[in-house]
Amino acid sequence: MIVGIVGGGQLGRMLAHATIPLGLTCRVIDPSPTCPARVVAEQIVGEYDDYAALAEFVRGLDVVTYEFENVPVETAEWLNDRIPVFPPPRALAVAQDRLTEKQFLQGLGAKFPRFAAIETRDDLDRAVATVKLPAVLKTRRFGYDGKGQVVLRNPADVEPAWLRLGGRPLILEELVGFDREVSLLAVRDRGGATGFYPLIENVHREGILRTSRVLLSDDPAIGQAVAVATHALHALNYVGVLAIEYFQRGTELLVNEMAPRVHNSGHWTIEGASPSQFSNHMRAVAGLALGPPEVYSSAGMVNCIGAMPNPELISGVAGAAIHDYGKSPRANRKVGHITVTAPSREMREERMRAVEKLVVS
Amino acid sequence: MIVGIVGGGQLGRMLAHATIPLGLTCRVIDPSPTCPARVVAEQIVGEYDDYAALAEFVRGLDVVTYEFENVPVETAEWLNDRIPVFPPPRALAVAQDRLTEKQFLQGLGAKFPRFAAIETRDDLDRAVATVKLPAVLKTRRFGYDGKGQVVLRNPADVEPAWLRLGGRPLILEELVGFDREVSLLAVRDRGGATGFYPLIENVHREGILRTSRVLLSDDPAIGQAVAVATHALHALNYVGVLAIEYFQRGTELLVNEMAPRVHNSGHWTIEGASPSQFSNHMRAVAGLALGPPEVYSSAGMVNCIGAMPNPELISGVAGAAIHDYGKSPRANRKVGHITVTAPSREMREERMRAVEKLVVS
Repeated sequence: MIVGIVGGGQLGRMLAHATIPLGLTCRVIDPSPTCPARVVAEQIVGEYDDYAALAEFVRGLDVVTYEFENVPVETAEWLNDRIPVFPPPRALAVAQDRLTEKQFLQGLGAKFPRFAAIETRDDLDRAVATVKLPAVLKTRRFGYDGKGQVVLRNPADVEPAWLRLGGRPLILEELVGFDREVSLLAVRDRGGATGFYPLIENVHREGILRTSRVLLSDDPAIGQAVAVATHALHALNYVGVLAIEYFQRGTELLVNEMAPRVHNSGHWTIEGASPSQFSNHMRAVAGLALGPPEVYSSAGMVNCIGAMPNPELISGVAGAAIHDYGKSPRANRKVGHITVTAPSREMREERMRAVEKLVVS
Repeated sequence: MIVGIVGGGQLGRMLAHATIPLGLTCRVIDPSPTCPARVVAEQIVGEYDDYAALAEFVRGLDVVTYEFENVPVETAEWLNDRIPVFPPPRALAVAQDRLTEKQFLQGLGAKFPRFAAIETRDDLDRAVATVKLPAVLKTRRFGYDGKGQVVLRNPADVEPAWLRLGGRPLILEELVGFDREVSLLAVRDRGGATGFYPLIENVHREGILRTSRVLLSDDPAIGQAVAVATHALHALNYVGVLAIEYFQRGTELLVNEMAPRVHNSGHWTIEGASPSQFSNHMRAVAGLALGPPEVYSSAGMVNCIGAMPNPELISGVAGAAIHDYGKSPRANRKVGHITVTAPSREMREERMRAVEKLVVS
């Protein structure tokens, strides 16, 4: 069986890497001839709307998945006319627009910070009045890692934000105070079985995920998160891993966003869970049964942003596992991550502190 | 950094696979253009004594390791004259001859079943008298998975065994009764640090490993095994993973054999330990620090001999992880393994039984 992956970045690389033990082959399509996944998969070099390249990509494939949510929906549907695409293209369509995503998840009982859709400058003024400041003005489409968004703290911020982002469909979201940010990774296989990883606590800085930590499996917030994810998986007839990010206030969870793919906050699962999110996604996509996620250690992850730390020093930290994506260094670029596993939460914290000191920031 | 691996079988495949997250590249040399490792490493197609191929293999490498103990010592030394070879070629020389291996480990305090070296037919008669039957007549070199050996149960078995194996240097080994077979995987890095995985219980059938199970980390036998392995690692100035297999009688451990490489009885470490034996071997070889082996679940492994089981059924067993080596089916061939992880030994046994029912035997 050959599994196609649209996108050959680090997620494509880790997906293809996890697929090799299953005895399956992966083929990626990516415009960059030096994309990270090329070392573990056959590659078609091509843009995602280049139908000649897509025709070459699709030839002989059994099934297709994708590693990023900004795959053009037309491309996903064109592929889906030829062979099965999982997660279903509808999940892409929902996730690519912040408004559609909120409306979809609200319909399933999820709660959100206040928000308002904006087309015109007048819409923005009305939204500021109802959502209230501080708030975040975001493009409805194609934002990631803090890109395409501006924080509005006082009325003087409104006009410059409009000048920067106006003219595209926007959304204004209440900037909520929170106790912590958490995420849930859910997975569903073709037979409809579902599985859930434990809740994860995430720390962002400058809009970029820095660290993730597995929370206790009996954390009281997990019930709400699992309920929303279960509804979403079934409503979309979803196959693969779905990530939902939340702001947590007390025991209340407010959705930040969802991603119809494996997720940075689940990278610790490579060593910290069995199966990993990557293996489970590919098992589901390839028509195998998902493995119920099991977690035995206290696990966490430190992202490597800009450049990799010295591997000789990192390897000296007990429980630290290096994941170098093979990307050239660049400011604010995710070039790798370090998984940390430990026999207790206290030791995990100690090890994560040791890793964080070595990671360039 | 480019790491060379002599041999592109399943061990080379799993070594190269484990090296990718470290951000390093692997190149294998193997005579078969369809060797299992080719999907995760650059390959030079060539025999292990083809010096033109070896010259091509060695070009631009930083360090070399090997995946099997029958690499010609001349090849290892030729490579070692050009770039570092780990484990050191002396470990190969010791392990390739059952007599040298026993003498080496005896000098470090290890105990063995009775044995005698044999060159002539008269030697064999003398050996039968001192070692006593039942015993196993083995070639001193190039035996594996039960090949090159004959069991002698009574005096009438002696002559046919000599006709089959005579003319080569042989060894007669007492066929000991044992409570169980166990193995220890040890690892040493370039800085001299050592690490040890928990003792593993192994079950063989027809000379081929069928299952491995992690024993409790406080098993009373581990002290002796760690002491012998520690001496062996330091005596050889060893770098990488070393496996020593034992027969256990009560609390007594008698060495069966050693292997200067990653070992089939450690395949469960991919999901069941952090780091895996493959990652730790490559970390050591590449000059990184080894990770102290940590094991959180109750883990085990079932070998797939002859053909892979149905992946749809295997994936339905909780805690089961498929490792398909990409080899074509053939009687008695190791074509893959299934790792089983579980929250308790009881659940591991239940899951292993479910897997064993699905594995072709």
